[in-house]
Amino acid sequence: MPSAGLVYLWSERTEMKLRILTGDRPTGALHLGHYVGSIQNRVALQDSYECFFIVADLHMLTTRPGVADIHAISDHTYEMLADYIGCGIDPEKSTIYLQSAIPEVYRLQLLFSMLVSVPRLQRIPSIKDMAQAVHLNEIPYGLLGYPVLQSADILLPRAHLVPIGKDNESHIEITREIARRFNKLYEEVFPIPKALISDVPVLVGTDNKAKMSKSLGNSILLSESEESLKKKVARMYTDPKRIRADIPGTVERNPVFIYHDVFNPNKEEVEDLKSRYRQGTVSDREVKDTLFNALNQFLAPIRKKRVELMKNKEYLKEILVHGTRRMQEEASITLDMVGEAMGYHHTWNELGMW
Amino acid sequence: MPSAGLVYLWSERTEMKLRILTGDRPTGALHLGHYVGSIQNRVALQDSYECFFIVADLHMLTTRPGVADIHAISDHTYEMLADYIGCGIDPEKSTIYLQSAIPEVYRLQLLFSMLVSVPRLQRIPSIKDMAQAVHLNEIPYGLLGYPVLQSADILLPRAHLVPIGKDNESHIEITREIARRFNKLYEEVFPIPKALISDVPVLVGTDNKAKMSKSLGNSILLSESEESLKKKVARMYTDPKRIRADIPGTVERNPVFIYHDVFNPNKEEVEDLKSRYRQGTVSDREVKDTLFNALNQFLAPIRKKRVELMKNKEYLKEILVHGTRRMQEEASITLDMVGEAMGYHHTWNELGMW
Repeated sequence: MPSAGLVYLWSERTEMKLRILTGDRPTGALHLGHYVGSIQNRVALQDSYECFFIVADLHMLTTRPGVADIHAISDHTYEMLADYIGCGIDPEKSTIYLQSAIPEVYRLQLLFSMLVSVPRLQRIPSIKDMAQAVHLNEIPYGLLGYPVLQSADILLPRAHLVPIGKDNESHIEITREIARRFNKLYEEVFPIPKALISDVPVLVGTDNKAKMSKSLGNSILLSESEESLKKKVARMYTDPKRIRADIPGTVERNPVFIYHDVFNPNKEEVEDLKSRYRQGTVSDREVKDTLFNALNQFLAPIRKKRVELMKNKEYLKEILVHGTRRMQEEASITLDMVGEAMGYHHTWNELGMW
Repeated sequence: MPSAGLVYLWSERTEMKLRILTGDRPTGALHLGHYVGSIQNRVALQDSYECFFIVADLHMLTTRPGVADIHAISDHTYEMLADYIGCGIDPEKSTIYLQSAIPEVYRLQLLFSMLVSVPRLQRIPSIKDMAQAVHLNEIPYGLLGYPVLQSADILLPRAHLVPIGKDNESHIEITREIARRFNKLYEEVFPIPKALISDVPVLVGTDNKAKMSKSLGNSILLSESEESLKKKVARMYTDPKRIRADIPGTVERNPVFIYHDVFNPNKEEVEDLKSRYRQGTVSDREVKDTLFNALNQFLAPIRKKRVELMKNKEYLKEILVHGTRRMQEEASITLDMVGEAMGYHHTWNELGMW
């Protein structure tokens, strides 16, 4: 796809659509949990909204990454881009950009850091959880300011909506407070963004112990090979009471059936399996084989597209560069509005900096 | 002075000198207290060191200024520049720059915010004092991060020395910790800066109640007119026991004699006045008239130079623009080193951002 095409579509895009900001840290290839929790939602939203997808590499700094972690960002970003596009996110409709390459992120973050108090940030429970998760005894100053950085992310494209899980509601509330405070103290620059809380349940991992997560080893990647998929499905947790196929089993909260419900488009087949499972007239093998087939059918086109994309990194690079450039333009406009509202433009103009 | 001259001297300047970073918030015309406490020291240092003087307008944000306050920065900066140069700071030797116009300040501040903990910042007593001074019930997040912003200021030109009063020692200690932590976690980029603690006493105000301060109305400006200077000296606090000229008075901690000691170059005259004051054989009038003469002689050349400078704002503007551009070059070099050390250059390069 020629870059001219991308540019053309961006400049033609209507300005009337509401804007959405969301994204991910570049931690590498995505899994089914990401798909269920956010990616499919983004694909559904991209026609009705102007979407900005942030590759949030600066967020990684809140837990003090080493040089190797930072070096890994590029590979992880390519994997993630391939997953996005493989799942149907359209880079001609949406803007995918690299956070660290936008200087205005840093500027807005500093300006916003003045508009929220330390006790207010300390009341957000997830910050402490984040520190504990990475075994930090003392909360880094920048980690306490994580919601301030997120506010800069959200308000930089002047987003109206932020699709989030319930556990992030407190972060978006801070963003709303900062936007209101800025608008009141200076001038009306920012929309007060709203949370778009998705009602999609969190996908449990293959071990049934916790939410699907790469680090817990209970995930199925969107890029999983057929062979590896087969093994992972075969090893999935099911009702442990069923030591034989003729013992009646429980369908509810059983991950194999949760996955069937989400990924098997043949609802009749799923109902039949559930019914026979409850009666003890189906083998685990059959339940899992049909699940494997459903998942494999779901993943096959993503896998195929992904392989093509990963062979053409120049194209992925182009998407990210264009998205970052597009975000850069938007960030410039926002900081112009901010500088005007705060009075810095006047000051810089008077002092010959403008 | 043509801009070419400034540029020439900058490029010719030796790189071997140690670097100093210091500066002021742009709060307007400076007074004798500023001269005694820092300006004369800077004039003395500018030949032996490569000095960077920051016009620290972003520091004002820590106490949430309104638009009018931000608009006032330009006038205040011109007054301050006229004072600097009127007192002998040489813009061909030193770099005077506007903090808010350096994008790298914001970037380095965010990166450094990850390298210091919240409890560490909370142990700095001056932060709470600053909040109380401006009647903030809760400490803004950005105010708690004030020492982080100062660290970015100091380390952006990779300064070796910071001339400070004793009350700011804890801030420079944070800078040293951040520099050490960065160098250890990534690569050796920053010198560990040292405090250059000045032994000049704090100048008391004309009311003898507190340190000289514009907001307390006990100051004598460097731009004070002859007429106004006369009035201010006449109204100065002296020994209240001396209701008549023949009553012996106390010289020690008497602001009139403190000023004589600092600003009257005729030491013989000062000793004679002190001796007669102690004996009750000199009128307050004579003590103050001689002080007025001494101060007026000290201020006359500054005042004259200042008037010229304030008539030629284009020249002042040129100094600031050139200083800011010079600092900008230095900031670029530093952020290049930082990006290289942290691994962001690698990442940006891989992703086509470079």
